[in-house]
Amino acid sequence: MALITLTTDFGTVDPWVGIMKGVIAERAPGVPVIDITHGIPPQDVLAGALVLRHAVPYFPSGAVHVAVVDPGVGTSRRALCVVTDRALLVGPDNGLLSLAADARRVVELTEERFFLSPRSATFHGRDVFAPVAAALATGTDPGALGRTVSDMERLSVPAPASRPEGLRGQVIYVDRFGNLTTNITDDALAAFPRSHLSITIAGARLCGVAVSYGAVSRGQAVAVVNSWGLLEIAVRDGSASAVLGARVGDPVTVGRSE
Amino acid sequence: MALITLTTDFGTVDPWVGIMKGVIAERAPGVPVIDITHGIPPQDVLAGALVLRHAVPYFPSGAVHVAVVDPGVGTSRRALCVVTDRALLVGPDNGLLSLAADARRVVELTEERFFLSPRSATFHGRDVFAPVAAALATGTDPGALGRTVSDMERLSVPAPASRPEGLRGQVIYVDRFGNLTTNITDDALAAFPRSHLSITIAGARLCGVAVSYGAVSRGQAVAVVNSWGLLEIAVRDGSASAVLGARVGDPVTVGRSE
Amino acid sequence: MALITLTTDFGTVDPWVGIMKGVIAERAPGVPVIDITHGIPPQDVLAGALVLRHAVPYFPSGAVHVAVVDPGVGTSRRALCVVTDRALLVGPDNGLLSLAADARRVVELTEERFFLSPRSATFHGRDVFAPVAAALATGTDPGALGRTVSDMERLSVPAPASRPEGLRGQVIYVDRFGNLTTNITDDALAAFPRSHLSITIAGARLCGVAVSYGAVSRGQAVAVVNSWGLLEIAVRDGSASAVLGARVGDPVTVGRSE
Repeated sequence: MALITLTTDFGTVDPWVGIMKGVIAERAPGVPVIDITHGIPPQDVLAGALVLRHAVPYFPSGAVHVAVVDPGVGTSRRALCVVTDRALLVGPDNGLLSLAADARRVVELTEERFFLSPRSATFHGRDVFAPVAAALATGTDPGALGRTVSDMERLSVPAPASRPEGLRGQVIYVDRFGNLTTNITDDALAAFPRSHLSITIAGARLCGVAVSYGAVSRGQAVAVVNSWGLLEIAVRDGSASAVLGARVGDPVTVGRSE
Repeated sequence: MALITLTTDFGTVDPWVGIMKGVIAERAPGVPVIDITHGIPPQDVLAGALVLRHAVPYFPSGAVHVAVVDPGVGTSRRALCVVTDRALLVGPDNGLLSLAADARRVVELTEERFFLSPRSATFHGRDVFAPVAAALATGTDPGALGRTVSDMERLSVPAPASRPEGLRGQVIYVDRFGNLTTNITDDALAAFPRSHLSITIAGARLCGVAVSYGAVSRGQAVAVVNSWGLLEIAVRDGSASAVLGARVGDPVTVGRSE
Repeated sequence: MALITLTTDFGTVDPWVGIMKGVIAERAPGVPVIDITHGIPPQDVLAGALVLRHAVPYFPSGAVHVAVVDPGVGTSRRALCVVTDRALLVGPDNGLLSLAADARRVVELTEERFFLSPRSATFHGRDVFAPVAAALATGTDPGALGRTVSDMERLSVPAPASRPEGLRGQVIYVDRFGNLTTNITDDALAAFPRSHLSITIAGARLCGVAVSYGAVSRGQAVAVVNSWGLLEIAVRDGSASAVLGARVGDPVTVGRSE
C-alpha cells in the first residue's frame, strides 16, 4: 500500500507541514500521510538522520519517506530520491538520508515537470519534495525523476573510542523526557561484566545496566538499553538532562568497576 | 468502522508517536489513526485519565483507544485491554484507563505473539500497545490477547468537600489558554442561587457564573461552565493561570454571596 | 474527493483538536482530516487569517476548511460558512475567513439540527464547526445550514506606505525559524533597482535581495522573497527574530542605496 511519511524541522506552530500535505492531497488523493516528527531541532541534519534511521524500519515496505532539514535550500545543493531495499527516501543531499539504510540507487531530482511551478527558493518541502513524493506514491518510477548519480553526502554517528579507563562515547540524542541516548550499543556493553560495570556521565557515576527504569527509586539515575538498542541514561519519573545538566555531545564513559 | 486513537505523554518533538503509527500501518493497513493528544504532562497519569474520560464519548462506537502514560514501563505493571460498552481501551494498568468508562471486561495482555519481538523495556507503546491495537482494529477478539482478570488499578478525581463557607473544590486541569478547569460540576453549582454565588480562587473573588467568556471585558476573570460540564475560571482574551498565578491542585471555593 | 482541514489556536497539548476529529469521524466516517496548524497564537485572528490565505490555494478544490480562532465564542458573534470559487470555509464571523478568498456566498449557520446537542458556550469547534464541516464534506448543501447573508467581518493586512525615504512596511509573521515575513510584496520590490536596494529593520541595514538563504555566511542576515511572495528577513542557520530582536509589527523600510 502506498504511504508517505514526513520528518522535518518545521515544527507544528507554522502551516508549513499542513501546506505540504495539501500538495500531496492534490496530487496523490487518498494516500495516507504519517508524521514521524516535525520537532527536529532547526537545521540539525544529524538529529534528523538519526531519527530516520530508527523510524524507517517500523514502517511498511515500499513507503515513501520525505525528510526536510534543509539549511541549504535554494542553493546548489542537490535534491535526491534514495532507493533502498525496503523504502524510498526523498530529501536534500546533505547527509539527512544517509543513515536510514543502504542505498541501492540514488537519483538526483532534476525533472522539473514533477515540481510545483513557480518554485520558491525557500520552501522546497512544498515545491519539490511533496510533489515528488506524491508522484512516487502514485507509481512514478524513481528513474523518471532525474539521473542516477554515484554519490551522496554521508554523515556518520561519532563512534565510541577505546581508552585505558574503558569505552568513551557521547550523548547523541535527548528526548522530551530528558532521557540521554548515547552512541554505545548493546553489543559494545557486552564486553563488560554486567555486575561490575560503571558508567560516568556529567560527574555522576552509575553502577550496572538495569532492565528497566523501575529498577531505581523516583528521582534516581539509571542506565538501560533503550528501544534503539543503545545505552541510555534516565532519571526515574524525572529528566536526566535536567538533573545531570547533560546534553548532546557530552562524554559518557563505560568502565569496569572494582 | 475500525479506528484507533492515541493519547500519550510522548510530546511531538521526538519520533515516538510516528514510530507507533508505523507499526499500526504495517499491521493494520488502512485503519485511520487519530491523535487525541500527546501533550499529557510527562508521567501525569491522572491528567491522561481525565483527557480520555472527556474525549472518548465523542468518538465512534467500537473505536480502539490506546493510551500510554507509563512510568512503570518494563516493570511488572500489567498491560490491559479494557472492554467498555462503546469502546476498547488499551494501555498500562496504572489507572490511566479507569476514568474513561465502566469496564465490562478487563483482559491482561499476556499473549506475546501479538507483540513486537524483541520487546524493549522502555517503549511498550511501540512493542506492545501499537501492535495490540492493530490486532483489535483488524478483528482480533479481546479474549485472544490474554486472560480475563477481575481487577484493575483505579484513579479517582478528588471530590469537592462541603464546608461551612460553601463548596471547596480544586483546579484539576489547565489548558493552553490558561483556563482553569475545576472539579465542581454544573449539578453541584445548581445548589447555589445563580444570582448570589461567589467564587474564590487564588485570592480573587468572582461573582456569578457567566454564560460565556464574552460576559466580561478583556483581561477580566470570568467563571463559566465549560465543555466538560465543569466550573472553569478564565480570563477573557488572556490566561487565568498566568493572571491569577493558579495551577492544578489550587483550591476553589463556591459560596453564597451576601 | 471530500477533505476537511483544521486551522486553530488550540495548540497540541490539550485534547481539543482530537475531540473535533472524533466528532468528524462519527459524522463523516472515512473523510480525511488534515491539520494546517493549531499553533496560531491564542486569539490572534489576523495570524489565523494570514495562514489560511497562504495555505488554502495548495489544497484540492472542494475542500472544507475549518478555522477556529474564536475569542467571542458563546457571544452573539455569528458562525459562518463561506463559499468561494474553490473551497468552503467554516468558522466564526470575526474576520478569520476573510483573507482566504473572495466569497461568492456567505451563509450564517443557524440550523441547529446540524450542531451537537447540548451545545456548550466555550467549545464551538466541537459543537458547531466540526459537525457542520462533517455535514458539508458528506454532501450537505451550504444553503441548508442557514440563511444567506450579505456581509461578513473583514480584516485587512496593513499596507506598506510610500515615504520620501522609500517604502515603509512591517513584519506581519514570524515563523519557528525566526524568519521575519513582511507585508512588502515581490511586485512592490520591483520598483527599486535590485543592485541599489537597501533594507532597514530593527537598526540593521541589508543591501539587496538575495536568491536564497545561502547567499550569506552562517549567522549573517539576508533578505529574500519567500514562499508567500513576500519580502522576508532571515539569518542563515539562525533566527532573525532573536538576532535582530524583531517581532510582528516592527517597521521595515525599503529604499534606494547610494
